[in-house]
Amino acid sequence: MSVYLHDIPLPEAQARLQQALQDADLWRVLGTESIPLDENALGRVTADPIWAKISSPHYHASAMDGFAVRSAQTNGALPSQPVTLPIGPEAEYVDTGDPLPGWANAVIPIENVESLDEDGNITDAIRSPRSIRIRASIAPWSHVRPLGEDIVATQLVIPAGHVLRPVDLGAIAAAGHQEINVARKPKVAILPTGTELVPMGSSLKAGDILEYNSLVIAAQIKSMGGEPRRHPIVKDEFDLICERVQEAAREHDLVLLNAGSSAGAEDFSAKVVEKLGQLLVHGVAVRPGHPVILGMVNQESENLIPDTSHLIPIIGVPGYPVSAALTIDIFVESLIAKWLGRKPRELQTETATLTRKIVSPPGDDDYVRVAVGKVGDKLLAAPLSRGAGVITSLVQADGLALIPRGTQGLEAGAQVEVHLYRSRVEIERTIFCIGSHDLTLDLMSQFLAGHDRRLASANVGSQGGLIALRRGEAHLAGSHLLNPETGEYNISYIRQYMPNIPVKVVALVGREQGLMVKRGNPKGIKSLADLTNADVQFMNRQRGAGTRVLLDYHLNLMTIPPERIVGYSQEEYTHLGVAAAVASGRADCGLGIAAAAQALNLDFIPLFQERYDLVIPKQFAESDLLAPLFGLLAERRFREAVSQRIGYDVSVMGTVILED
Amino acid sequence: MSVYLHDIPLPEAQARLQQALQDADLWRVLGTESIPLDENALGRVTADPIWAKISSPHYHASAMDGFAVRSAQTNGALPSQPVTLPIGPEAEYVDTGDPLPGWANAVIPIENVESLDEDGNITDAIRSPRSIRIRASIAPWSHVRPLGEDIVATQLVIPAGHVLRPVDLGAIAAAGHQEINVARKPKVAILPTGTELVPMGSSLKAGDILEYNSLVIAAQIKSMGGEPRRHPIVKDEFDLICERVQEAAREHDLVLLNAGSSAGAEDFSAKVVEKLGQLLVHGVAVRPGHPVILGMVNQESENLIPDTSHLIPIIGVPGYPVSAALTIDIFVESLIAKWLGRKPRELQTETATLTRKIVSPPGDDDYVRVAVGKVGDKLLAAPLSRGAGVITSLVQADGLALIPRGTQGLEAGAQVEVHLYRSRVEIERTIFCIGSHDLTLDLMSQFLAGHDRRLASANVGSQGGLIALRRGEAHLAGSHLLNPETGEYNISYIRQYMPNIPVKVVALVGREQGLMVKRGNPKGIKSLADLTNADVQFMNRQRGAGTRVLLDYHLNLMTIPPERIVGYSQEEYTHLGVAAAVASGRADCGLGIAAAAQALNLDFIPLFQERYDLVIPKQFAESDLLAPLFGLLAERRFREAVSQRIGYDVSVMGTVILED
Repeated sequence: MSVYLHDIPLPEAQARLQQALQDADLWRVLGTESIPLDENALGRVTADPIWAKISSPHYHASAMDGFAVRSAQTNGALPSQPVTLPIGPEAEYVDTGDPLPGWANAVIPIENVESLDEDGNITDAIRSPRSIRIRASIAPWSHVRPLGEDIVATQLVIPAGHVLRPVDLGAIAAAGHQEINVARKPKVAILPTGTELVPMGSSLKAGDILEYNSLVIAAQIKSMGGEPRRHPIVKDEFDLICERVQEAAREHDLVLLNAGSSAGAEDFSAKVVEKLGQLLVHGVAVRPGHPVILGMVNQESENLIPDTSHLIPIIGVPGYPVSAALTIDIFVESLIAKWLGRKPRELQTETATLTRKIVSPPGDDDYVRVAVGKVGDKLLAAPLSRGAGVITSLVQADGLALIPRGTQGLEAGAQVEVHLYRSRVEIERTIFCIGSHDLTLDLMSQFLAGHDRRLASANVGSQGGLIALRRGEAHLAGSHLLNPETGEYNISYIRQYMPNIPVKVVALVGREQGLMVKRGNPKGIKSLADLTNADVQFMNRQRGAGTRVLLDYHLNLMTIPPERIVGYSQEEYTHLGVAAAVASGRADCGLGIAAAAQALNLDFIPLFQERYDLVIPKQFAESDLLAPLFGLLAERRFREAVSQRIGYDVSVMGTVILED
Repeated sequence: MSVYLHDIPLPEAQARLQQALQDADLWRVLGTESIPLDENALGRVTADPIWAKISSPHYHASAMDGFAVRSAQTNGALPSQPVTLPIGPEAEYVDTGDPLPGWANAVIPIENVESLDEDGNITDAIRSPRSIRIRASIAPWSHVRPLGEDIVATQLVIPAGHVLRPVDLGAIAAAGHQEINVARKPKVAILPTGTELVPMGSSLKAGDILEYNSLVIAAQIKSMGGEPRRHPIVKDEFDLICERVQEAAREHDLVLLNAGSSAGAEDFSAKVVEKLGQLLVHGVAVRPGHPVILGMVNQESENLIPDTSHLIPIIGVPGYPVSAALTIDIFVESLIAKWLGRKPRELQTETATLTRKIVSPPGDDDYVRVAVGKVGDKLLAAPLSRGAGVITSLVQADGLALIPRGTQGLEAGAQVEVHLYRSRVEIERTIFCIGSHDLTLDLMSQFLAGHDRRLASANVGSQGGLIALRRGEAHLAGSHLLNPETGEYNISYIRQYMPNIPVKVVALVGREQGLMVKRGNPKGIKSLADLTNADVQFMNRQRGAGTRVLLDYHLNLMTIPPERIVGYSQEEYTHLGVAAAVASGRADCGLGIAAAAQALNLDFIPLFQERYDLVIPKQFAESDLLAPLFGLLAERRFREAVSQRIGYDVSVMGTVILED
């Protein structure tokens, strides 16, 4: 059985770990503790079934304010033929919750009674009369909560392995308990390793990596019901790591060693596990996250004792943030569930239509982060960034699409199983916006959240957005496509790309486009003409982007051949992407909007004004889903927030450009 | 505007409260606080949008272990035409995460490189060669994580009003934050009032009511993100309650006054609110929970100051546990959501088929607790106990069916909207068992939980169960119906009630039926013949119950006319219900099983042996859903647990009685 970075299929990896845990007698509830029955019991998991110690109610209780009577003595009472019962032997006032007198078997609500004084006249002292007159009979046990109505002593109140909710606490209290036995929280040590890691708050130099995986992992463990402990960063030194793992193993139920799980020169995790215990798995056929290590380490000493009673599990968690988070979900959640005696968490699964092609390594279970939205009747899954380092893709993800082992990938339009992070209700409130990117969309997303809508936006350029609309894959698209013949925006493209689809087009903003250059403009760039200078490295936008159309339009006007521009074929997908390229020195300049230049502290050379529109098929323009969006365009606070951004003109906002 | 117990429609009641909160400038996020970015931030709600302070990565980082190169210098490299690059000016070793040298623009993974020594021979020092030989060109920016790949400084990372999840914490850290502004937790005072209330752990006498509503409410507030504080029980004294409310109002954002909200003699809540502030609503047209009080109280003094700036909301919460819990869900959750700036919680809604008729007051929005299961293609909602005091009905509920105002009720088979407490996944793992009640079902439920199945059981008697199976409204039914002609169990009834439905019938247990009598048997009951004694009060089971059939069979054999038995027409629905009736003195005896008698500490006079079977339509008997149930019947631990119960014989367990 080879264990070196061999990409073992997921079920086999899980089975190996489970077998090792069974051998060590750790595939069970780890332990129990008795805790007081108070609001801190919320979310804990019952270790034993809870049986009722007492009944509830524990006596026959009046369910109303009224008079306790014997039902038989009310027989024959009619509106025309009232029955009078003297207070004392035959009737007694009771408040709601009072015990029924031993002789009584029903309660007549006070509003159905005439209270009489000693002379037989109706009295205002309705609760302390001398007799009562009734004009209807009453069935036995009416308006009485009989003993045991809610709970009968000895009955099962809550099963074992139940995650306690507020009402459960009430039922347990009603059944006579003041303490409960719950599974103790598994203690999990999180050890970040890596010489390049620096703690949050450090000032960063190139090569420093901010250590925040331990924060995410600790929060994951906490939300699973475990007790995480974040340890300080350990440098990449074999002996040091061994020492720290050994220490952590003594006081915890599980050790998570973060990073160093691959096969590089400074990846010591596998060797550490081998030295301190057993290496079970090195590499799992799952993406992201394949360089996972599963093993057992000895709690007692560095030498492996054949007695397995001192072994605890250790997991080598990959270093990329997305890989790390998914590894915890895949391997640790089911373990914590077992240790607590609860069912593993399960995400709702739905079938959705992929909006674009996914290429996937056929040997791996591939988890692709997707945005999910419902457009018309179609549930759509739009793949987000695949980068294992892109934690924002997990933040934005509405779910994970699983491309199972043995699949080479999937075409656009294919059906795919998606494990949803959000409820259907949330997804049905999601406005799916695909097209050109503008920073105003960030603000729009922020404001829409206050109107019970989510904005999910994918950046595929203006033309890509119109094509998505034609395919019924978005509710709206942002577009700023200049028609070089007419100087008009968007309309000719809409007719070309979305023939026969009635649309509403609304202006969002006017904005300035120009050249972003390094602070101080070291290459002295003044206009598009300077892009042909041999020492100027340009960064372009992708084909189909409105900014690219604008560039080509002006290059054409100025008769500048694109091939004379160094970097014309290098593409970024957003304004900020281009700005980042300039800021980092990958390029000297790029065309984009003023706000993006400002964001990255670049200089900006304004060149053109353009209009950025929202294109919305009529069927969605009239939907409840999008109503808050139109409201927003008229909202003063929103207009102000946008106009505070540099280079934006909100005077056109909300103007209807076209309405079919 | 009258406010006295007038059952105002729910939307109007909510609108009145909201208006009062707006007038007092309290319909907003209450306040914010800065907290450290650690795992305790989980579940907190962002008070402001979080914008990126830094980019991530903040430099161009190698995405692999390999050699940094200039892409242009690799042009033309082919397997047959390798290119050699000297270490130093043209190639440099980098680990994953290392910054790219300023001159480089791509990384060649180490496995794609031949490392050469000073003589140009391949060397084992693969990471420290003198030169590298490559046999393929590499595109610019390959295997590089460019600056800002994940986050570009200034971009929106997390919007305001977002409930923080583990991955969010990572993204916020990556964006350069160490602290975050979150909404402060609303402080909620919970004041239990009532002279009859006793704290948990008290020894109980008749009339004492165990106070646990404050526990449930505190847990609800906590799970909503508020900070609950449970106050000691206050007696029903007007001045005392006023004083305590005043104190609580000073230090909290919301006061919940539990019980005393109705219109009885000792219901002071409305008068307290009136004295200390404004009574807005007394009585809402919603069931359970209509005697709700909504108001505002003054934080500063007992006298109402027209200045609304010192008013805070107060809610008079009804005393019955189910009413109390639903009142908190209906009125407090949306308030806490507003104060935290998050969206209100929303339950998934599905349409289900009602299994039996519901009568509902037409003037009220009526929330009916239901068990929900999927039987075949049908999603079914089986109404649970309607009693406002029956907290176990909330524990068992899978959801709430809403019978809207203006509806008189719904017939069996009607479609109803159900707000689900559980996910569809859980509901699809639910085995729906309707029929006769046996304590073994409690144990079965407990054991099935360990096999990823839930057992939802509704007790409608043996015949009711068979009828439910015919209607396709259950997966199985428990039945112990004796054929008086043949002495055989169940089969003739199955043929009669479920003609043409292929079934599998499996014996569950043999059990003893007998008479349950008070400890010491004070009435000297020995056999069914003694039931005709005039001083013996009997408690019967409902029509259709197997135990009732058994009684009638033996009464007939013994020629005892039922009308000679006092209490023959009084019905309980379960064995424990009959036992509770005897224990409480409502009856002197009843027919039932030994375990029920033991549960309530009664004497038991064994009379008959009977068999209790599980009746399962073939289509479900062969389903994955029920497979674990059949496994259970053969499980040693389960058989042992059942046989430890008094009066049970497990020797028949699992015997197939009939298989079509």
